[in-house]
Amino acid sequence: MERALIGIDLGGTNIKSVLLDPATGRVLHAARTDTQAGSGVKAVVSNIVSAIARQQAVAKNQRRHCLAIGVGSAGLVDRGTVRNSPNLPGWQGAVPLSRLLGKELAGSGIPIVVENDVNAMVLAEQRLGAARGCRQVVGLTLGTGVGGGIIIDGRLYRGCRGGAGELGHTVISEDGPPCLCGNRGCLEALVGAAAIVARYRGRDPGTRGKRPGTTVAMISAAARRGDRRAVAALRETGRLLGVGLANIVNTFDPEMIVIGGGVAGAGGLILEPAVREMERRAMPYNAAHVRVRRAGLGPQAGAIGAALAAADGIARGDGRGRAR
Amino acid sequence: MERALIGIDLGGTNIKSVLLDPATGRVLHAARTDTQAGSGVKAVVSNIVSAIARQQAVAKNQRRHCLAIGVGSAGLVDRGTVRNSPNLPGWQGAVPLSRLLGKELAGSGIPIVVENDVNAMVLAEQRLGAARGCRQVVGLTLGTGVGGGIIIDGRLYRGCRGGAGELGHTVISEDGPPCLCGNRGCLEALVGAAAIVARYRGRDPGTRGKRPGTTVAMISAAARRGDRRAVAALRETGRLLGVGLANIVNTFDPEMIVIGGGVAGAGGLILEPAVREMERRAMPYNAAHVRVRRAGLGPQAGAIGAALAAADGIARGDGRGRAR
Repeated sequence: MERALIGIDLGGTNIKSVLLDPATGRVLHAARTDTQAGSGVKAVVSNIVSAIARQQAVAKNQRRHCLAIGVGSAGLVDRGTVRNSPNLPGWQGAVPLSRLLGKELAGSGIPIVVENDVNAMVLAEQRLGAARGCRQVVGLTLGTGVGGGIIIDGRLYRGCRGGAGELGHTVISEDGPPCLCGNRGCLEALVGAAAIVARYRGRDPGTRGKRPGTTVAMISAAARRGDRRAVAALRETGRLLGVGLANIVNTFDPEMIVIGGGVAGAGGLILEPAVREMERRAMPYNAAHVRVRRAGLGPQAGAIGAALAAADGIARGDGRGRAR
Repeated sequence: MERALIGIDLGGTNIKSVLLDPATGRVLHAARTDTQAGSGVKAVVSNIVSAIARQQAVAKNQRRHCLAIGVGSAGLVDRGTVRNSPNLPGWQGAVPLSRLLGKELAGSGIPIVVENDVNAMVLAEQRLGAARGCRQVVGLTLGTGVGGGIIIDGRLYRGCRGGAGELGHTVISEDGPPCLCGNRGCLEALVGAAAIVARYRGRDPGTRGKRPGTTVAMISAAARRGDRRAVAALRETGRLLGVGLANIVNTFDPEMIVIGGGVAGAGGLILEPAVREMERRAMPYNAAHVRVRRAGLGPQAGAIGAALAAADGIARGDGRGRAR
């Protein structure tokens, strides 16, 4: 019987799911459903369970045995419990997601592994995407939030309680603008989507605009049409991102830095000045061999990575949420 | 026959050496000799060889079999070659130290492993010192330079070409004072000894004083006598170090941060404000469990760590400088 992994990417708006062939890394089936985050933890858990059930049905149709289920979630994930997930209302405390899912899926006997969503995305890129074949990889996601994930010797590095890789909350400007995390001058406060929009509007990056409407995609489009203010805002964002990249290069001496997330869609408008600034600031021997690449797997990367993290987890003897 | 390891700490002024019992971690013999850095690479290599020969003689007297020789050196160490060692004149390029020593020691058959000196110090603290029993450890050395070392899952992390752990050259103030490394606003430019002296004298930390004389030890002594300017300079240094600690905590989620080097001798005058600032800035869940400790092994830590790195290296199949 052939095998399959189920991967779930739990976002604030959508739950994305994939059925993955562990032998080839091929996505056998992909689906998407509403998270209904506003309806509370119970509703979200129930929606995840439904997404899993649908993928299980596909696996059964394809006569595949399901090895493991991986769930990627925003927030700090420590042994199956999700903490401080900022985009899921009601999840601000500690949600024992692995245990809750294990209870719902009792009887299936399939191990469940919960992983941080950015970690999952970076793992997917390292195994199947832009960083394939690299052993030392750092990933960044640029969007409303700025996330990080660290691969050491080909394996995810989580720190001692799952809190590693919060690269969006490392400081590059100690007296810089306040960040939602409580710190100041974090990478997220300077290159997150809100900072880019504020910079374009000529405001202090620390102030979050009340007028909605302008998005980074609009600013990127304006820059491509030659709008100087848009070009300048993205270039300055790139320069600041480059300071963060130099810190990553001097800290990790990685083979590759993979950059994903919606803001990475601005492409060279941000990434070219970022790489230039990194090269100016990082140790030359490190800077000379690191490669900076855009993520290659697209919006399914998180779900694919969750499935891969689950496979790694069961190989390590994890899967604490195993339904019995 | 009992066993022994030889560890060498190659400094700009002294070569420290130890004979270490690998079974107990006990230092069986310690020695110190002049580096004679000004006499060039050949003289330094010859002095290292003499230090090794003396420890080999002690081992022979104690009827111990020498398993491996470890040499800790400043600079970036990539597969036995030392690059950019700032405090050894003539070592600015690439010095194939492992190969040079292997040639000199031909016939001894003992594998030689060269390691970055801060990495060696942190490894010693993790195996035998303040961080004993911790698996995820970050070490900082505070002095003229600010160095870093990273232990992941109980093993040194070197990055893909030996350049990892340059935490003294991560930026915490992107428009901050210039650093000798070519970057600006690095931790070293803000909390290195020169910055502390400049801060005490009321100068911009970026300017390196021409008048020699004032040292961090003198400033610490003045602070202990109640000199307000000295207290304020150390407190501000601690605050800035705390920004760096918060970055380490958010990046690595370590069990412990170990702080060594001469400037750490200022003790609580720097470390207390540093920990307070770290707690204000780091992710609360990470900050709550990390411990920040002063290094425990004293000035022999580098040589001890070099010996331990050599033992790890031969276990991994390194020791490229093996004399045949």
